[in-house]
Amino acid sequence: MNVDVLTLFPEMMDGVFRTSILGKAQEKGIVSLNAVNFRDYSDNKHGTVDDTPYGGGGGMVLKPDPIFAAVEDLLSKTSAAPRVILMCPQGETFTQQKAEELSAEEHLIFICGHYEGYDERIREHLVTDELSIGDYVLTGGELPAMVVIDSVVRLLPGVLGNETSAVTDSFSTGLLEYPHYTRPAEFRGWKVPDILLSGHHANIELWRREQALKRTLQRRPDLLKKVALTDQDRKVIRRLRQEQQESNDG
Amino acid sequence: MNVDVLTLFPEMMDGVFRTSILGKAQEKGIVSLNAVNFRDYSDNKHGTVDDTPYGGGGGMVLKPDPIFAAVEDLLSKTSAAPRVILMCPQGETFTQQKAEELSAEEHLIFICGHYEGYDERIREHLVTDELSIGDYVLTGGELPAMVVIDSVVRLLPGVLGNETSAVTDSFSTGLLEYPHYTRPAEFRGWKVPDILLSGHHANIELWRREQALKRTLQRRPDLLKKVALTDQDRKVIRRLRQEQQESNDG
Repeated sequence: MNVDVLTLFPEMMDGVFRTSILGKAQEKGIVSLNAVNFRDYSDNKHGTVDDTPYGGGGGMVLKPDPIFAAVEDLLSKTSAAPRVILMCPQGETFTQQKAEELSAEEHLIFICGHYEGYDERIREHLVTDELSIGDYVLTGGELPAMVVIDSVVRLLPGVLGNETSAVTDSFSTGLLEYPHYTRPAEFRGWKVPDILLSGHHANIELWRREQALKRTLQRRPDLLKKVALTDQDRKVIRRLRQEQQESNDG
Repeated sequence: MNVDVLTLFPEMMDGVFRTSILGKAQEKGIVSLNAVNFRDYSDNKHGTVDDTPYGGGGGMVLKPDPIFAAVEDLLSKTSAAPRVILMCPQGETFTQQKAEELSAEEHLIFICGHYEGYDERIREHLVTDELSIGDYVLTGGELPAMVVIDSVVRLLPGVLGNETSAVTDSFSTGLLEYPHYTRPAEFRGWKVPDILLSGHHANIELWRREQALKRTLQRRPDLLKKVALTDQDRKVIRRLRQEQQESNDG
């Protein structure tokens, strides 16, 4: 997979692109990550990429010319049909499902603004997707682009060492993860639950599923609607709801 | 504000912490950003920080000892009462409201795992907050921590040059932003809307508010419930809904 990130701050990407999973995925030749400074595509010698907004008001707006030129230069060098993704608060909220969809692409191009608006013609005539990573304000699209890239690249075949890692995570099963424990068995008086030391694998699996259901029910009941629940799961949920009710009443 | 980030990959932070708003906020002395490798707090010479999970299964689990030791070392050096924030998919979904809440703190400590679980005792006995930036799986907590830090630091007084920038953004007004345009007035045949060239400021303001309402209604109607709408806004929304209905019927 080829990934290009258009940004005025390519140096923001260095540490993240070189480290851990993204660094290793590049070493293995699975993905090529490339930061492009679209100031290099400015049509004037001052390297201007923004201007004041028509209609007045504060702030600056990214001009269409340099961004169109940068994207079109990248498109001219590939036979793939890249997705052109604008990172912006107005975009579709990014989800694991979208990560899976994007992981099937050959080439992704991200456009990152930095505390400025985009000229609307970029949105209307150049991009294929607009993505937001959540309902909070950031200074630029660079961190959101890195978030999307990380979540997409880890899904590519051969990237994660343990092949099961990608499927057992939160949001992959649809439930929040059950509690994990490791050594020591007692830490400052706080003990690991007996069941995990029992060696009884079937009971451990039941306990873990119940804990995952319980945590999801307590913290993110909205997620339960999207999960394929078994009859056993539904029985557990009924019991957990009843226990909660009794504890509220008591 | 002091911000410490506990991570096994401190080099991931370099580019982001040095650049743009975060870099400038540090130069101005408004915030101090510090990446701490919690491997330095391992209790053995091999620098071990993780171990296999009790009860079996794949993956590794971060041990309680090094993380408790690292956080307690940081706590011993401050008179503030820092928030200790665990970045994890099971956490509360991060929002702009949470960013505002955290921006009032003196000291934040972030704990970032990296494709591993946390021993549950960290969650139960050490942290004050658990945060998730969205419903997607990432390889570690580093990018999410940087996202939260960026959104919090930009709210600190003196960080953003233009004092109005922080309030007029998306999610601060509660509506998605209206379309922006800058030069050229015509680009490849696509023209800037006439109203923005009219110089009639009152009409421009009305147009922008209507466009913001329209975009929010089309893309994120869920956000409208949380916005303080004026009578004029409600009138516009009724008209937009009617137009949409007519276009569906037509």
